[in-house]
Amino acid sequence: MAIIKKQRIEKLKNKASEMLSRSIDQHINLAVTGLSRSGKTAFITSLVNQLINEGNKSKLSFFDPVHQGNFIAAKRVPQKNYQVARFDYEGGITALTAKQPHWPEPTHGISELRLAIRYQPKSSLLRYATDMATLTVDITDYPGEWLLDLPMLKQTFEQWSDVTLALLKQAPRNSYAQEFLNKIADIDPFAPANEEQIAQLSAEYTQLLHQFRHELGLSVIQPGRFILPGELAGAPILEFFPYAGFDDIDLNRYQNADDTSFIGMLRARFIEYKESVVRKFYQKHFSRFDRQIVLADCLNPLNKGEESFADLELAISMILESYRYGQSGIFSRVFSPRIDKLLFAATKADHVTPEQHAPLVSLLNQLIHQSKHHISFEAIEIKTLAIASVKATSSGFIQHQGKKVPVIQGVTQQKFEQNDDAESSTNKQITLFPGAVPEKLPTQSYWQAQAFNFINFAPTQGLSKHECLPHVRMDQVLQFLLADKMI
Amino acid sequence: MAIIKKQRIEKLKNKASEMLSRSIDQHINLAVTGLSRSGKTAFITSLVNQLINEGNKSKLSFFDPVHQGNFIAAKRVPQKNYQVARFDYEGGITALTAKQPHWPEPTHGISELRLAIRYQPKSSLLRYATDMATLTVDITDYPGEWLLDLPMLKQTFEQWSDVTLALLKQAPRNSYAQEFLNKIADIDPFAPANEEQIAQLSAEYTQLLHQFRHELGLSVIQPGRFILPGELAGAPILEFFPYAGFDDIDLNRYQNADDTSFIGMLRARFIEYKESVVRKFYQKHFSRFDRQIVLADCLNPLNKGEESFADLELAISMILESYRYGQSGIFSRVFSPRIDKLLFAATKADHVTPEQHAPLVSLLNQLIHQSKHHISFEAIEIKTLAIASVKATSSGFIQHQGKKVPVIQGVTQQKFEQNDDAESSTNKQITLFPGAVPEKLPTQSYWQAQAFNFINFAPTQGLSKHECLPHVRMDQVLQFLLADKMI
Repeated sequence: MAIIKKQRIEKLKNKASEMLSRSIDQHINLAVTGLSRSGKTAFITSLVNQLINEGNKSKLSFFDPVHQGNFIAAKRVPQKNYQVARFDYEGGITALTAKQPHWPEPTHGISELRLAIRYQPKSSLLRYATDMATLTVDITDYPGEWLLDLPMLKQTFEQWSDVTLALLKQAPRNSYAQEFLNKIADIDPFAPANEEQIAQLSAEYTQLLHQFRHELGLSVIQPGRFILPGELAGAPILEFFPYAGFDDIDLNRYQNADDTSFIGMLRARFIEYKESVVRKFYQKHFSRFDRQIVLADCLNPLNKGEESFADLELAISMILESYRYGQSGIFSRVFSPRIDKLLFAATKADHVTPEQHAPLVSLLNQLIHQSKHHISFEAIEIKTLAIASVKATSSGFIQHQGKKVPVIQGVTQQKFEQNDDAESSTNKQITLFPGAVPEKLPTQSYWQAQAFNFINFAPTQGLSKHECLPHVRMDQVLQFLLADKMI
Repeated sequence: MAIIKKQRIEKLKNKASEMLSRSIDQHINLAVTGLSRSGKTAFITSLVNQLINEGNKSKLSFFDPVHQGNFIAAKRVPQKNYQVARFDYEGGITALTAKQPHWPEPTHGISELRLAIRYQPKSSLLRYATDMATLTVDITDYPGEWLLDLPMLKQTFEQWSDVTLALLKQAPRNSYAQEFLNKIADIDPFAPANEEQIAQLSAEYTQLLHQFRHELGLSVIQPGRFILPGELAGAPILEFFPYAGFDDIDLNRYQNADDTSFIGMLRARFIEYKESVVRKFYQKHFSRFDRQIVLADCLNPLNKGEESFADLELAISMILESYRYGQSGIFSRVFSPRIDKLLFAATKADHVTPEQHAPLVSLLNQLIHQSKHHISFEAIEIKTLAIASVKATSSGFIQHQGKKVPVIQGVTQQKFEQNDDAESSTNKQITLFPGAVPEKLPTQSYWQAQAFNFINFAPTQGLSKHECLPHVRMDQVLQFLLADKMI
């Protein structure tokens, strides 16, 4: 009898504690995206790795919950959204810790991963309520192109055509786009639409977008779904392109042109794309994010030259557009996303010598703050960091002509060989000073001097799945994105 | 002044005629699907080809609008649904009319094509109202597996597991499935779910479905989206499988198991699949279809043997299930699809000698009417036909041991060679009597005799894009599906 009573009381106590615990549990929807092949998959893999292996060779001294001993443990738990691919952590960590380590395969489209982080509340009322609390983090990985599509929501087809054509006519895009521009200049806008011709020209436009991305290393690829079509492959919604002759046509006639005319069909599909692709992404995903990290590879554009760098600038200003609320922004305050923290991280910081990290951050800051939008961000905290998700080099000094010169050392990245001779492939260790990162937006003289040579390194050998990966400032990333929810 | 007035009257007259014409225009949503690699793509390509080239070597004498001279012309027009892939007619007709003709590549997922058919109304009031009317036909091509998923809507996870496991334990599936069945027998249903293990077992189950489809030539592949995942690739919604131990567990405990338990997670994903994949297909597409044609290759299952044929039987009875309304059907009459005509076509009729067409249709009829469902179809007209979308053989007679024996002649199908020597590949013409088609469901003695040898033929050479393709009974297909809307 006494035992039963005791059990019952115990049960009630547990229940009360559970209810209390539930009410203090926290939740964050963390969105991760990237520009210019910035290493999104390596980043998420490292972030998860740092948290689930915490305590095993971890170096997270700038992440307060770890530094102050509140962090208990983290684990992956099943995601709640069954219709979005699971982020392939297993594949990522296996690539990085393989005998012949290589960077993980890039992800296509959207994927998710849920982490549960147990911690001991130290401050506020919580410490008296319970011994443990859980922070649930839903990480969503999505292509940077989808973020760059959002500004389309406030554009008409005319405006979008103007902006897109201006880009196509400038260097470096114009060297690829001339033939396409000639073809679309010949279109009779009010003639009956020829679906096959539109399909053909759209395929050429899509081909250009692939070239801009992969050959020129550009960031502004619009419409983003064209290069990652998924289930929409072959659907008319992905078959349109800018119209070139708005200066010469009767705009009244344009307004009245129906969907069976050439221009009417292009416009109808543009509108459908905005509503069914861009707005749907906004409603289903973007509007639910609490925090966003945008990864940007600034080194590759510096390598590629002025035009590639200018494109990164444009991409960042387009992204900031989506976080600007009010009359002139895309979203009204009522329908605004609820993001309260936005982190821009310059990745691959380990690819330059440590004293270059400060100029790298300074450069990224300039990219962000030269934009005139910063006045409207009162509701969002913005931060910039230079990071390496998985550190691939070591740094030191050499003596050169009597001077101490900073250098990094790493294994140059070769294409990962598929055959059995993989281990004997020609990866070699090199030591170098890759060059100085300009701390302000580069001037003409910087571009003319071409005094930089950033090289891609492979991940270091001998990493273990069950230990924390070496990194640069991942703890500061965690501190900014998660720490305030773990007090 | 007089001219302006005349123009105005003309305009009003046109407008009145247009309004009248619009009101008599007809529209059909025609759905095409298939079982056992039945040649859906060739069928749709031929159907479109017959209509748009009508008059140029066409043989559509059983299609009344052509026979009676009401048919004016047909053309492809842009589809209205921008988010569904366009059916690749150009690719299909190019493959069939190539120098080295080959069957078109099978389609994946759903695609659409819209035809506008101009005709002269002959009867009813219409002939007095206008000279021309238009029948708009929206053709939707979708995988047979999606149709076979519909019965899942009325199953619980327990019921679905029972039915699916019964199939897996029978020949011919059991020869492949034993290892998988052993693995799932070991699952502890109430243990915490291990997502990686569920992902791994789901991958094995999906692999089995591929083998059933491609190695065993089976028709019942469920859940259908597992083998054509599209954008859901890697998503938890495609990661579940039947549970094997329902006889041994406490069903009360099962009902209360939450989503974090092994069985709870399987059940949750099964339910999500039903709601978000199956019901969504039903609502977005299936419920809008007016007419359905189900293509079935009966010859290949006859070749493969008793078990493959039994699977075709099962598939047909599952399909009929979706057209059975009322209490015991899947859909109530209120939410029923609006299909009024359902055509089952046995394809590849040109692969047997002409006197075998009657037994072929008779066999198909038996497959349909042995099912006990036919009593409930009062609202739907069902027809069966033996057809060849694109006729690949010619038929004749040879003298054999003093008797006249019917034969067909065609080019045996070789893998289409990609290299430049394609034309010198080893396709050869053969003449044969492929065997007798049983006109009733085959008996044991039929299977034991194995007196049949159906061979796949390549399309004949020398076909032209701008002429009607040779066919068997495509005119009767058109008569059944379209003619009553062109009166």
